[in-house]
Amino acid sequence: MKGIRFWAFWPVAYQPSSLQASQPPSLFGLIGRRMTKGQRRKLNRIYFMKYCSNCGQPVIHRTPPGDDRPRFCCESCGMVHYLNPKLVVGCIPEMEDRILLCRRAIEPGYGKWTLPAGYLENGESVAAGAKRETLEEARAKVEILTPYALYNICHVNQIYLMFRARLKDKRFGAGAESLEVKLFGENDIPWEEIAFRVIHATLLKYYDDRRLGRFSFHMENISPPNPNPPKTDN
Amino acid sequence: MKGIRFWAFWPVAYQPSSLQASQPPSLFGLIGRRMTKGQRRKLNRIYFMKYCSNCGQPVIHRTPPGDDRPRFCCESCGMVHYLNPKLVVGCIPEMEDRILLCRRAIEPGYGKWTLPAGYLENGESVAAGAKRETLEEARAKVEILTPYALYNICHVNQIYLMFRARLKDKRFGAGAESLEVKLFGENDIPWEEIAFRVIHATLLKYYDDRRLGRFSFHMENISPPNPNPPKTDN
Repeated sequence: MKGIRFWAFWPVAYQPSSLQASQPPSLFGLIGRRMTKGQRRKLNRIYFMKYCSNCGQPVIHRTPPGDDRPRFCCESCGMVHYLNPKLVVGCIPEMEDRILLCRRAIEPGYGKWTLPAGYLENGESVAAGAKRETLEEARAKVEILTPYALYNICHVNQIYLMFRARLKDKRFGAGAESLEVKLFGENDIPWEEIAFRVIHATLLKYYDDRRLGRFSFHMENISPPNPNPPKTDN
Repeated sequence: MKGIRFWAFWPVAYQPSSLQASQPPSLFGLIGRRMTKGQRRKLNRIYFMKYCSNCGQPVIHRTPPGDDRPRFCCESCGMVHYLNPKLVVGCIPEMEDRILLCRRAIEPGYGKWTLPAGYLENGESVAAGAKRETLEEARAKVEILTPYALYNICHVNQIYLMFRARLKDKRFGAGAESLEVKLFGENDIPWEEIAFRVIHATLLKYYDDRRLGRFSFHMENISPPNPNPPKTDN
């Protein structure tokens, strides 16, 4: 049953929540890789939606009148189903000169380190979402300081919004999705063991800003991983 | 057929796109109003999803094992359907000391003025989405400058992200969703005729910042409208 959840929203390479991140291994190799427009469209068509959630009849993938891109349309009840990017919210929990990282207890990135982050829920503000994820994954209470960085991860239809945050006290521990939660100084950050490129980018930016002595709001793109990385001697 | 589209995602009071904003008038009074948790849950249950988009069987609304809130679950194929907030992106298109507003040709807010904004599409960066909406609604090409303000509109499950932008030239005009598009100086802004509270808030903030001579990034909540506004003599 866990594997089946994947089919609802297939581009999940960056999904931090155990409930949404389960993937059938046979398809895992495709996730987040560079694909042709045709390949992506085909995958979208196959996996996103098969039946109308309003009337239960099969949907077709076509451009509705007055629209400029294909949607899942129900010919039976007339409903057009819109699929939009998801917002992932998280934070960099600071305590003096150290920050809190979580070692993941789930795939993707099992055993690797990450910042607390996850899908924003309906009815929730972005700051409340980042707080909740920190409590769930690191059992830590934080005060959200400022929005820090926004990352477009277009190839998986995700927008990451990361905050700077302050740990309220020294109480923290591994939540259900973490193996271990630990405070790191800059020199101890396990750079080779960071679970996701977006988290790696956030941390690099954060320490750059800290050296400069000022934190501004950043906005960047995370491109799809190169499926054929050049071989080096390193 | 147009009315039926509404049922996919009912909280649409702030939805700027004609394709997504159509609402059956009988329910319009409920949208965006203060509701009890029970009322909202009931509405969610009734309107969000009736059938599984993976197998076409009816879904039930219950909390899946290991989760902390109810989701639409399919007992037939086991899929759990997650519904998350949508991101609306837009901009304040500047030309010298004036900004571009659009008069809406669609409900909600027919005939009122707004900034170009709309739902972020899959595969799109937030800046690209704001650019596209400006081209669609105001037939204007803009250069996106900086993220300017983020608004949580939790009661309709929307997050607004507004940018500052610069009009590339003086070519603009009414797109399919606009009656009229016009440049306004601060003294001419039709404050009483602004379509949405989030746009009103953005414009107020923008002119405050302009008077101060510095633009910072803002983050605020838009609360549900008061269903019983106090009567005044004004």
